[in-house]
Amino acid sequence: MQRYFCNSLEDKTFTLSDDDTYHIVKVMRMEIGDEIEVIYNSKLFITRILELRPVKAIIIKELDTYNEMGIKVTIAQSLVKESKMDLILQKGVELGAYSFIPLKTKNSIIRLESKEDKKIERWQRIVKEACRQSKRNVIPKVFNIMSLEELGELDYDLKIICTVNELTLSLKNLLQNANKCDTIIIVIGPEGGFLKEEENYLIQKGFVATSLGKLVLRTETASLVALSMINYEYER
Amino acid sequence: MQRYFCNSLEDKTFTLSDDDTYHIVKVMRMEIGDEIEVIYNSKLFITRILELRPVKAIIIKELDTYNEMGIKVTIAQSLVKESKMDLILQKGVELGAYSFIPLKTKNSIIRLESKEDKKIERWQRIVKEACRQSKRNVIPKVFNIMSLEELGELDYDLKIICTVNELTLSLKNLLQNANKCDTIIIVIGPEGGFLKEEENYLIQKGFVATSLGKLVLRTETASLVALSMINYEYER
Repeated sequence: MQRYFCNSLEDKTFTLSDDDTYHIVKVMRMEIGDEIEVIYNSKLFITRILELRPVKAIIIKELDTYNEMGIKVTIAQSLVKESKMDLILQKGVELGAYSFIPLKTKNSIIRLESKEDKKIERWQRIVKEACRQSKRNVIPKVFNIMSLEELGELDYDLKIICTVNELTLSLKNLLQNANKCDTIIIVIGPEGGFLKEEENYLIQKGFVATSLGKLVLRTETASLVALSMINYEYER
Repeated sequence: MQRYFCNSLEDKTFTLSDDDTYHIVKVMRMEIGDEIEVIYNSKLFITRILELRPVKAIIIKELDTYNEMGIKVTIAQSLVKESKMDLILQKGVELGAYSFIPLKTKNSIIRLESKEDKKIERWQRIVKEACRQSKRNVIPKVFNIMSLEELGELDYDLKIICTVNELTLSLKNLLQNANKCDTIIIVIGPEGGFLKEEENYLIQKGFVATSLGKLVLRTETASLVALSMINYEYER
């Protein structure tokens, strides 16, 4: 069944957004009486369509399901070109990321000053769409673009920076020896990697330099690998 | 340094293929005297360019490096549309897959009869290019398209079929309780999944139904997740 996010509920009836109305009516060609899933307030409802423009749908029942997972993993991804960023967001949602921080670094390819708002909005839309497809109940937040200094001030139980130096601590070693943690942040460098001084700055701010293994990974693959490994370790 | 595969060696001099010659001369604009890395017989050599059409390069030294990893993991991927197959091959190489088997199933989107040779050739080219970028010394083989019956006859130490049923054995549970193994095959279903009878057939042939976790993964993500998890478990 198709699934939509909604934040407008009145009299047991959801009113869906223009985008979702378009998708339901034009793309899915659904009609009055058809059923859709609606996520509201992180809860999942089965609903029946009552009206089409905009789509209004009444609750039939609330499902007792909650597929979000204990540990909250934030991906701080250095800016890369658009198509790669899209892939990172889509796959990140699919693999259970809790939120995303786009990160400005010395080697980041893209410089965006004026259009930043539009970018974030677009990324947030991609994340929402990926959520729908991955049947997740909570939409991960895409934060505004941060500097390394802003990142350094954030508070997480476990702060990880992925390095290309395979001689550093492995992620497995780190996770298996870490205290119980509820929030993890993983920082992924840009193509070309962090400058030594950037890496050192984060380490000084409590981030642990960690290797994802012996393989040569591209920047757009690193977050997916890290998330897969965390899911494996904690059996999410 | 740029890296190329070669299988023509005479008098300590490699003769590179037309494709690689084009890449070296036209794309990289290299000249006589420049150095390139050459992989020959799974070994890595530093060489100096002697001639340009075709490129001939003489061995300066052999490097004592071998980045291939103990366990050989084969990905048997049900056929999916081209762009997804390309991603699976590229990322699979990056994550250390040893070989690939394209698999024909009931729900496979693409039916290719006449053009099969061309497909395999194209996939093998993609794999070779990905190897170059991931600095791998061995080019994974792309097998001809197999049927489920052919797949069922293959011999591996550990045979895994990924299911969407999260109640089955987890991959972690399986790997941590498996005997020492040198070869693993992982079968990934098509979009829409395997038919029950297909899954049962493989289980009867010794494949173990295994879950990659609670998340809803797309078919093109499953192999990458499985490879990441195997790399994590065996610290490859």
